[in-house]
Amino acid sequence: MELNIALLAGDGIGPEVVGQAVKVVDAVAVKFGHQVNWTSGLTGAAAIDAVGDPYPDSTHEICMAADAVLFGAIGHPRYDNDPKATVRPEQGLLKMRKKLGLFANVRPTFTFPSLIDNSPLKRERIEGTDLIILRELTGGIYFGERGRKDDGNTAFDTCTYTREEVQRLAKLGFEMAMSRSKKLCCVDKANVLESSRLWRETVQDMEKDFPEVQVSYEFVDAVAMRLVQWPSAYDVLITENLFGDILTDEASVISGSMGLMPSSSIGVHTSLFEPIHGSYPQAAGKDIANPLATVLSAAMMFEDAFGLKDEAALIRTIVNQSLAEGIVTEDLAGKNKAYKTSEVGDWLAAQVG
Amino acid sequence: MELNIALLAGDGIGPEVVGQAVKVVDAVAVKFGHQVNWTSGLTGAAAIDAVGDPYPDSTHEICMAADAVLFGAIGHPRYDNDPKATVRPEQGLLKMRKKLGLFANVRPTFTFPSLIDNSPLKRERIEGTDLIILRELTGGIYFGERGRKDDGNTAFDTCTYTREEVQRLAKLGFEMAMSRSKKLCCVDKANVLESSRLWRETVQDMEKDFPEVQVSYEFVDAVAMRLVQWPSAYDVLITENLFGDILTDEASVISGSMGLMPSSSIGVHTSLFEPIHGSYPQAAGKDIANPLATVLSAAMMFEDAFGLKDEAALIRTIVNQSLAEGIVTEDLAGKNKAYKTSEVGDWLAAQVG
Ligand SMILES: CC(C)[C@H](C(=O)O)[C@@H](O)C(=O)O
Ligand SMILES: CC(C)[C@H](C(=O)O)[C@@H](O)C(=O)O
Repeated sequence: MELNIALLAGDGIGPEVVGQAVKVVDAVAVKFGHQVNWTSGLTGAAAIDAVGDPYPDSTHEICMAADAVLFGAIGHPRYDNDPKATVRPEQGLLKMRKKLGLFANVRPTFTFPSLIDNSPLKRERIEGTDLIILRELTGGIYFGERGRKDDGNTAFDTCTYTREEVQRLAKLGFEMAMSRSKKLCCVDKANVLESSRLWRETVQDMEKDFPEVQVSYEFVDAVAMRLVQWPSAYDVLITENLFGDILTDEASVISGSMGLMPSSSIGVHTSLFEPIHGSYPQAAGKDIANPLATVLSAAMMFEDAFGLKDEAALIRTIVNQSLAEGIVTEDLAGKNKAYKTSEVGDWLAAQVG
Repeated sequence: MELNIALLAGDGIGPEVVGQAVKVVDAVAVKFGHQVNWTSGLTGAAAIDAVGDPYPDSTHEICMAADAVLFGAIGHPRYDNDPKATVRPEQGLLKMRKKLGLFANVRPTFTFPSLIDNSPLKRERIEGTDLIILRELTGGIYFGERGRKDDGNTAFDTCTYTREEVQRLAKLGFEMAMSRSKKLCCVDKANVLESSRLWRETVQDMEKDFPEVQVSYEFVDAVAMRLVQWPSAYDVLITENLFGDILTDEASVISGSMGLMPSSSIGVHTSLFEPIHGSYPQAAGKDIANPLATVLSAAMMFEDAFGLKDEAALIRTIVNQSLAEGIVTEDLAGKNKAYKTSEVGDWLAAQVG
């Protein structure tokens, strides 16, 4: 099979972690007789430096022509404390999401038995946790009208949702729930926000189409609590963009394995696979970042974008081996030897054999 | 001294927990020679039932005439799954905050050594945690324009902040930081929201007036992570209304003592003291709810509203005694005898002696 993959390494540790995933994907392709066509595109601060745009048209064309996008991370501290900067790396991310129609971000959170004690949460609280947060990614306050008034002394942002946007995301949520434990939680702030009331009423209307799914409605503040109290009580959660941003990051702490958590974004034009961690600029260029989340994102890509389950399963098996044998970067090494990012990548690729 | 206190019991367990605080306040007043004038007002679902308004004018007048407000909790499940209800208990809360000008919600999070193992977080992660989240309470998306368009199929909410609103809240934050460890964290989403950029630039401009305070700027998603990873790394956090709603609830889990956490809301016209827990309707009327958070809120009231530190200290000492001697409700009793709400209140009042 021919696999046309757009490769967006991004900023910070992005290039290093993506580089290891490429090694693994290439090895898997050789083993299974696929032909991978990688096409690289610039994004983020790297793209601002090169062409003044964090998601240039040339990169968009590469993504549109590809069957899937493998993404690293973007963001650079140079822009964080400069609220007046007019071009920011993150704008590239938002533009990319919008132009590729990546409307649903899928964030699994599960525990690795061998790493469960890395969690800040107690073992008995998290054992058995296996949840998915489905975050709406192209609407809400991220994309509404915003600006200043009153000589710059008043600022506003607008959160807008249409019924169709909610339905599209919720439908995925119901379907996912059907393929899992048939439990769906709609997270909103319907006691305050009109957009949340639209979410809640839309999801309520859809319940009749999925009579087997047991739906609960919870406020975002309550979920922010319960996620750390009893994460294993949740299965599939659906929510709007900003709540999803906050809750997925919070949830990433649960397993104690943030460096291992993959994600996908399902789109109208293509789909995108990326580690949930950020660009971690402090570690950039040091060959110390953990590449496993990106490698596991590549496994998701094999399965979800190309329907290649055996390839995905092989990658997951090899990642589990690396954990079992301690071929891991310093964040997971504890008192044992820490391997370099590139060494972990080489080891994984070699195991594909 | 004459203490004019408005008493808003509210819904669910509100009346029961507030009732115990009244016993303790009355006992303390007798001991120290104060005269307490309690005036009760209706709020929440109770007020909707009685007069069709969750924060009636009569209640507002009571609050305006008082030196401080002691508040229980409001909210009723009857309204939660009815997105079309036009009058909701929570509207009373929002109206009250706005009309009383309660612009800053102060939420301390600290650990009780004897209860630290109740936390879902590991002891070594939370030991020494002593942080305050200062949440802006009368602005942002809670009070912006909202509505429907397009035959009800599009919903919008607006988040608006003015520089003055940010300054007022941030000034409190800087002052609190000065009286503590001189560390302030401004929590925003300045990589996306214009209102957050106004927050960040306003706080940056204020840094020169508080040269000793070390200010950090962090994104709300990152804080949602770090709060559960290393809560003891934080001291004073300032943030806007919706982020504060989510983060304060998340933080309430840290100590494992949610039933003990008090809060205050600082206002233009008066200030209000309340437990952080909600109306917990499932427990209403059963005499099982933990009254300690409300009793500790009364201690905050003595200290912050009336400047009566000895009275506050006495209440805190007695609460610690009740914990040490196991005179606690079922949520804290473990395998030991659980006392009723009213028994805990009677015991505390008797200890004042
Ligand atoms: C970088 C930022 C704009 C982005 C977001 O808020 O969506 C990030 O936090 C994420 O979750 O992917
Ligand atoms: C009940 C609700 C409107 C309220 C809020 O969101 O402010 C509550 O969650 C709180 O934090 O006091």
